[in-house]
Amino acid sequence: MRTPAPIERLVAGLRRLPGIGEKSATRLAFHLLTAPDAQVAELADAIARVKREIVLCAECFDLTDVSPCAVCRDEKRDAGVICVVEEPADRAAIERSGGFEGRYHVLGGALAPLDGIGPGELRMAELEARVRGGAVREVILATNPNAEGDATAHLIAERLAGTSARITRIAYGMPLGGDLEYADHVTVGRSLANRKEL
Amino acid sequence: MRTPAPIERLVAGLRRLPGIGEKSATRLAFHLLTAPDAQVAELADAIARVKREIVLCAECFDLTDVSPCAVCRDEKRDAGVICVVEEPADRAAIERSGGFEGRYHVLGGALAPLDGIGPGELRMAELEARVRGGAVREVILATNPNAEGDATAHLIAERLAGTSARITRIAYGMPLGGDLEYADHVTVGRSLANRKEL
Repeated sequence: MRTPAPIERLVAGLRRLPGIGEKSATRLAFHLLTAPDAQVAELADAIARVKREIVLCAECFDLTDVSPCAVCRDEKRDAGVICVVEEPADRAAIERSGGFEGRYHVLGGALAPLDGIGPGELRMAELEARVRGGAVREVILATNPNAEGDATAHLIAERLAGTSARITRIAYGMPLGGDLEYADHVTVGRSLANRKEL
Repeated sequence: MRTPAPIERLVAGLRRLPGIGEKSATRLAFHLLTAPDAQVAELADAIARVKREIVLCAECFDLTDVSPCAVCRDEKRDAGVICVVEEPADRAAIERSGGFEGRYHVLGGALAPLDGIGPGELRMAELEARVRGGAVREVILATNPNAEGDATAHLIAERLAGTSARITRIAYGMPLGGDLEYADHVTVGRSLANRKEL
């Protein structure tokens, strides 16, 4: 006997989310069916509204409800240092670290020639314009520490070579709380090579 | 710098779902922000509609879009055999096993005195009325194979002792402490086929 159509529709919708398979989707659907009405209505509303109310910041291309975003509007944030990240979620991770007081630039991804993502698909020209146009002293390349992120960082460094800005890359090393025994050899090698005086 | 309110609202709504913590909720929210508009609208709509369009079947208390539900309306399903389950998800698991051609009765949970769930909180009186009122030859107790499910099965067996129906319990082909909702369909099917007299 088939599942009622409204439940099937919900399961199908939930299955399209990353990391949610058939079983998780079914479990979530049955949870929603027994959850309080107000809570479920709130979630449906939050999903529908987030797409209508969130736009890209005209300066840094982060997600925001008002453009320019709060970081770009904040006079206390150093406009002379730009941290370049792949995705809004990466910007959020750096902001959570509390270790950065400059501005951001969200590329919208990393180079991935096999997936058809070249420099034109990322916001590289916009970054160049920002760096060439303003009094930017440093560009921190915080793309992800993998092949695509490295390639993207190197291409940006090449493109900005003629400017007066310092171009830096986030450090590679052991993650805090990590274990040398279980770390991959590249990470161990880099954390050795990048050792600092104590 | 704080996250925009629409994103925070969405993350808060997603975090209330079972098995979804802060990180998963954030990842899902950023996914939804970059997913196609139509797909996101569809999900919001599916969540909102499922609560409006799904009701309890007046006969078996399963979730359905039309009451009585498709199983209760189906003349080919044997009305003389009733399979008693705790939750709609359990009914769905048994249906997926393909090993059952009778009707269902969804209790709405299992006895849990510590959580204040006694016989009055479950649909036991309704089950008794169905068994006493109709030509029911067999009641299969398919409550979960754990302490609460066993206690519930035994109480139902006691209550139906005076009727002419055979009272059976699904076999312990199920792993002890398991949950029907998460079992594979072969195990569910075997435990149905090997049911024993109580």
